[in-house]
Amino acid sequence: MIRLFVPHDLAAGAPLALDAGQSRYLAAVMRQGVGDEVLLFNGRDGEWRCAITAVTKRAVAVRAEAPARPQAVGPDLDLVIALVKRGRLETIVEKAAELGARRVRPAITERTNADRARVERLTAIAIEAAEQTGRLDVPAICEPVKLDALLKAWEPGRRLLFCDEAGDAPPILAALHGQPAGPWAILIGPEGGFSPRERAALRALPYARPASLGPRILRADTAAISALTLWQAALGDWTPPAGAP
Amino acid sequence: MIRLFVPHDLAAGAPLALDAGQSRYLAAVMRQGVGDEVLLFNGRDGEWRCAITAVTKRAVAVRAEAPARPQAVGPDLDLVIALVKRGRLETIVEKAAELGARRVRPAITERTNADRARVERLTAIAIEAAEQTGRLDVPAICEPVKLDALLKAWEPGRRLLFCDEAGDAPPILAALHGQPAGPWAILIGPEGGFSPRERAALRALPYARPASLGPRILRADTAAISALTLWQAALGDWTPPAGAP
Repeated sequence: MIRLFVPHDLAAGAPLALDAGQSRYLAAVMRQGVGDEVLLFNGRDGEWRCAITAVTKRAVAVRAEAPARPQAVGPDLDLVIALVKRGRLETIVEKAAELGARRVRPAITERTNADRARVERLTAIAIEAAEQTGRLDVPAICEPVKLDALLKAWEPGRRLLFCDEAGDAPPILAALHGQPAGPWAILIGPEGGFSPRERAALRALPYARPASLGPRILRADTAAISALTLWQAALGDWTPPAGAP
Repeated sequence: MIRLFVPHDLAAGAPLALDAGQSRYLAAVMRQGVGDEVLLFNGRDGEWRCAITAVTKRAVAVRAEAPARPQAVGPDLDLVIALVKRGRLETIVEKAAELGARRVRPAITERTNADRARVERLTAIAIEAAEQTGRLDVPAICEPVKLDALLKAWEPGRRLLFCDEAGDAPPILAALHGQPAGPWAILIGPEGGFSPRERAALRALPYARPASLGPRILRADTAAISALTLWQAALGDWTPPAGAP
């Protein structure tokens, strides 16, 4: 069934007018008509089965019929990613949504060539990926900030998995072994690597765990996907239920 | 330093004429001249420091000077991937090269809509990714074959990690726990999933380990990257050296 993210509140019987883009998608692209059902979610009220009640050229109206899934929230995982070229950043946002990150925070480092991200466009990509992957929330896409400022304002209690390509860090699974699940962030550097000053500062952070991503050089998007995967498998919602073999 | 894959034999003092594409790349794009050095590898003779000995508009000649790294071969890992749309298949090949797969075998399943892959183009992508990621070989890209035929001719002794989105399989790390490193293949299905018949056949294979890829629906490229990562981290060359914590 088609899933759409909406800003509206969702409750039994609530009538909703979908926006122009979603209306066009449902009516013109997916050929949905009155009586057809869609699943809506808003990140707050769970997922709802909704019936289409009216279709015009420009607007589709629906009514929330019954709850399909209660609101649930995944692990508290941020992805801090040095700004990369637009195409790769879009891939990273799509994959971060599929892999259950809660926030994507683009960072400006000494060796980053860009200082801007199209946050609105990236948010649209995050929404579409969240719709397809079946999650009940959408990862927040933050405005880019300088890495130094981001670390200066670091949230107490949030651990940092620092993906360090410089060689002597333990593999990610070893670095995460025995660590608490709590709030975490993954940090992926720019393709030129961190500067020696940045690297020393990151290594000195008491809440940071350096980790390596294997023996080959990875592009930033691959590194982000691999690190998100390993974190979810080791500490996140890919772990076997307690007591499983 | 620039790394290039070449078909030539590499040995001390060997003179080589690079092909037109690589010559143009070195001379026109990277502005290399006589005396500049590049690293060449061919998948057989290790990596060699080579000096540029002549540059014309159409041809760059080099001479192998000294071995830089001895030939090494990564884990024996195949990726069997149901054919997907061209763009995603290209991403998968790029990532399989970065993540150390030895072969990519596109498969035609009951719910696959395509039966062709541009093997030559995919091989060029694999070569470029191998050059950038620093590996000493290039993953082989095979012609697509039907899944049934591929399983009928299965190589004895090669284990199969069957990524099964149907829900009751254990998480990948649990599925791989205690398994031998030996030859393996990872199988990723089409976006519509395997048919019930295919799934039953796969589940019945004595050499197959079913495994799940977490609670969210993943696109085929994400599933491939995640599975390759977890395999490398659990059984491949991302594992800590023996005796490490």
